[in-house]
Amino acid sequence: MPDMQTSRDTRKIPISKVGVKDISYPIVVMDKNRKFQQTVARVNMYVDLPHHFKGTHMSRFIEILNVYREDIGLDKMEPILQEMKKKLGASSAHLEIEFPYFIEKRAPVSGARSLMEYTCTFTGTLGETFDFVLGVQVPVTSLCPCSKELSRYGAHNQRSHITVRVRYAGFVWIEDLVDLIEGCGSSPVWSLLKRADEKFVTERAYENPKFVEDIVREATLVLAAHEAITWFSVEAENFESIHKHSAYAAIERDKRKA
Amino acid sequence: MPDMQTSRDTRKIPISKVGVKDISYPIVVMDKNRKFQQTVARVNMYVDLPHHFKGTHMSRFIEILNVYREDIGLDKMEPILQEMKKKLGASSAHLEIEFPYFIEKRAPVSGARSLMEYTCTFTGTLGETFDFVLGVQVPVTSLCPCSKELSRYGAHNQRSHITVRVRYAGFVWIEDLVDLIEGCGSSPVWSLLKRADEKFVTERAYENPKFVEDIVREATLVLAAHEAITWFSVEAENFESIHKHSAYAAIERDKRKA
Amino acid sequence: MPDMQTSRDTRKIPISKVGVKDISYPIVVMDKNRKFQQTVARVNMYVDLPHHFKGTHMSRFIEILNVYREDIGLDKMEPILQEMKKKLGASSAHLEIEFPYFIEKRAPVSGARSLMEYTCTFTGTLGETFDFVLGVQVPVTSLCPCSKELSRYGAHNQRSHITVRVRYAGFVWIEDLVDLIEGCGSSPVWSLLKRADEKFVTERAYENPKFVEDIVREATLVLAAHEAITWFSVEAENFESIHKHSAYAAIERDKRKA
Amino acid sequence: MPDMQTSRDTRKIPISKVGVKDISYPIVVMDKNRKFQQTVARVNMYVDLPHHFKGTHMSRFIEILNVYREDIGLDKMEPILQEMKKKLGASSAHLEIEFPYFIEKRAPVSGARSLMEYTCTFTGTLGETFDFVLGVQVPVTSLCPCSKELSRYGAHNQRSHITVRVRYAGFVWIEDLVDLIEGCGSSPVWSLLKRADEKFVTERAYENPKFVEDIVREATLVLAAHEAITWFSVEAENFESIHKHSAYAAIERDKRKA
Repeated sequence: MPDMQTSRDTRKIPISKVGVKDISYPIVVMDKNRKFQQTVARVNMYVDLPHHFKGTHMSRFIEILNVYREDIGLDKMEPILQEMKKKLGASSAHLEIEFPYFIEKRAPVSGARSLMEYTCTFTGTLGETFDFVLGVQVPVTSLCPCSKELSRYGAHNQRSHITVRVRYAGFVWIEDLVDLIEGCGSSPVWSLLKRADEKFVTERAYENPKFVEDIVREATLVLAAHEAITWFSVEAENFESIHKHSAYAAIERDKRKA
Repeated sequence: MPDMQTSRDTRKIPISKVGVKDISYPIVVMDKNRKFQQTVARVNMYVDLPHHFKGTHMSRFIEILNVYREDIGLDKMEPILQEMKKKLGASSAHLEIEFPYFIEKRAPVSGARSLMEYTCTFTGTLGETFDFVLGVQVPVTSLCPCSKELSRYGAHNQRSHITVRVRYAGFVWIEDLVDLIEGCGSSPVWSLLKRADEKFVTERAYENPKFVEDIVREATLVLAAHEAITWFSVEAENFESIHKHSAYAAIERDKRKA
Repeated sequence: MPDMQTSRDTRKIPISKVGVKDISYPIVVMDKNRKFQQTVARVNMYVDLPHHFKGTHMSRFIEILNVYREDIGLDKMEPILQEMKKKLGASSAHLEIEFPYFIEKRAPVSGARSLMEYTCTFTGTLGETFDFVLGVQVPVTSLCPCSKELSRYGAHNQRSHITVRVRYAGFVWIEDLVDLIEGCGSSPVWSLLKRADEKFVTERAYENPKFVEDIVREATLVLAAHEAITWFSVEAENFESIHKHSAYAAIERDKRKA
Repeated sequence: MPDMQTSRDTRKIPISKVGVKDISYPIVVMDKNRKFQQTVARVNMYVDLPHHFKGTHMSRFIEILNVYREDIGLDKMEPILQEMKKKLGASSAHLEIEFPYFIEKRAPVSGARSLMEYTCTFTGTLGETFDFVLGVQVPVTSLCPCSKELSRYGAHNQRSHITVRVRYAGFVWIEDLVDLIEGCGSSPVWSLLKRADEKFVTERAYENPKFVEDIVREATLVLAAHEAITWFSVEAENFESIHKHSAYAAIERDKRKA
């Protein structure tokens, strides 16, 4: 059978990324407490294509995913990317994996256990060097300092998402990153809260008001102080309870340049 | 050219709905204050198909949409459906239109003007009789009575969506339905609030705590009392500030059967 | 601590559904070939609320989910609903679970293995009687008979989703339902196809053209012939390659009434 | 009333972007053929915040949007950003607007008129200099060259999205950009096609097979040849008819550096 993909292209245009996008696949990732966790990922896999080839071989991406899907550790990102470069004959490879990750949490007063979902991303690129970014989205409560200050009682509060991306030397557990970031809002959130917990969370948030600006600054403080982290970006989005739109703030910092 | 759609089907299976789905189209709808409003709709158009025909004529739906799109009044739903039945040779027709609708609101203290978006739906069916359902989604703030009661200060609150669908005799303006429903949460929301407004909204919500159950019950009271409305359903979804999931409640009532 | 939820409500308005919505939770479901499969679900859990109670107890839903999440078999739906009724003191309970389910498939010629994702839904209601609906969304290719007939060569084709919901007596495996429905389009689809497979799929689709109307009729034939199935609905949506909108068809049939 | 936002922050952390996100607002944009077009936008508005201020003034963003929303021309991006800098006392401002834009097209044989939706983005930044990026998403049909070559008849084809972003000197109409890009797939798509048009589109796509790689290369050729365009990126996503995932390719080129 002819292989059109390897036929000669004369347009002299190299392609920086070509591959498969939005594959839903079951994967197994490392879990700090339970060793492994099974979840479902959305995966994008790309390589570069030199100008003289007409196309890449899409099926090979899935073959690689088949091999590695049961052990998508942080330590496997570079081997997977090497395999992609090799099997596709490319000089650079790019891998994006997004998945829900669950951590068991205990409610602050009752100790009731439940699972919280954190959307995580692994983004790896291998050209001449290897680059990896770990991302975690952490839901929290934010309570508005201005609303508290102005009002005789109460203060508007809402669910917020803090999205952190980090580069690091050594190793960082998702669980530890979540722990650090959850303290940056007015209160963490839980899936299961009994009445005593609800009182605790309500009062804690009221005692601890945070603008969207405060959230990204608090996160900047903890991420800047983290020894392993060499670069980070943090975004906070407050799904305002008094509006139909969000308040948003973002900071990015490269500690290697400081 | 052959017309396969009109060729004979021998499987003896009539189809209840066939047509086009998720067409994005600019439309003009009636506006109580400004006469007309231009917006962008997502449209589904279906007819039934007798068992002996192989297919329907999809392009005719778009032709009908072309004719009527500049005047999608509530009073045009029945004529459009009649046209669909006629042009497609069908015994029933079904039309679903969803669009963002904007109403100018004034902030409660400062009077500052801004536009609020309400997602609306027109759902019409014409078989032997004509049936029409008007839907409006109204964002509000909800403040938790339990959290207020238990806590020394503060109370968790969040954005909520109240989705109302109504059948009625006579006429109902979107604006009037929004007005009725916005009062059913702890406070309405606005796009633009100055500091004095934020104080007002915060205190009003605190003085007016509502469970998700209260919201659908309050909505039930006002909809049951509305003379023109003959049937309604109401759903409320609270995007909980202390959880990553929602609280939800729903009531449906047919006043014609009461 | 006061329990506001059990306090008396005087509005005389019972609520048909109240509970938690859009909880993301890891679950374990039955797998025909591998016994169990771990996946991630989106879960809604509701009960009714008598008119004299002010509210339901939202945290109890999560407690029940915690107990059952590691064994969400089809045979566990009724016990979960019974538990919901009991723990919430309700006369009816409603449970909706949506999750990606993966089935290993072998490519038609090369036999290459890969996993296909099928979005499944379990919808259960327990009032005086128990009602359960199993839903599966099956992606296929559809090739347009009209385009094939009119054109000198080629025919437009596209990805289609066939969504089936069934009630049944006895037991139905997801795998078997997928098998039945995958044959109703112009060709099944796979995650991994080698060149020989791509030739096979292309030719098979061309030899087997299907209107969106044909797809729902074919599905009706196989579902009507299935002995265990007592009721079904089938929808097909073609994401047309020559338009930016979809073609759609739907049939529903209650075999118990026939 | 106290203005907490202007109070002093001592954490020494400047914020690069802070503002409002996901506001849905009706806007008016320039239209090459009809002078103006009303549509509905999703808007993000951010400024930077010096380290010594505690917060920004969120309501001012909406006030600015109120003033300019009826004339969001390409020529208004810089004035809006200047206003944002001035009103918020910022040294940089960032504005993102995404909206559906409709162009009337005539079917290729019958000449039947219909409207096609193209999702557009305006992204502007004003720091010391002004930067603007125009984005357009163009749906087309793509037909696989490999499938055509291997198969005795037919070829798999599907809807594809080509997303182009351009920087330019002078002026570029959305309509002209769409025209250029629509020719880069196997065939353009239309909302309304009669039978003669469907034959034309089917045959044209079959005569004109394109890999996802070809699409971005063809787009690169036309964008590289366009005199006003100084920088561009192009992405193509094929919603594969034989898979449940997409094929994807991307190229970016800065002509100022060449």
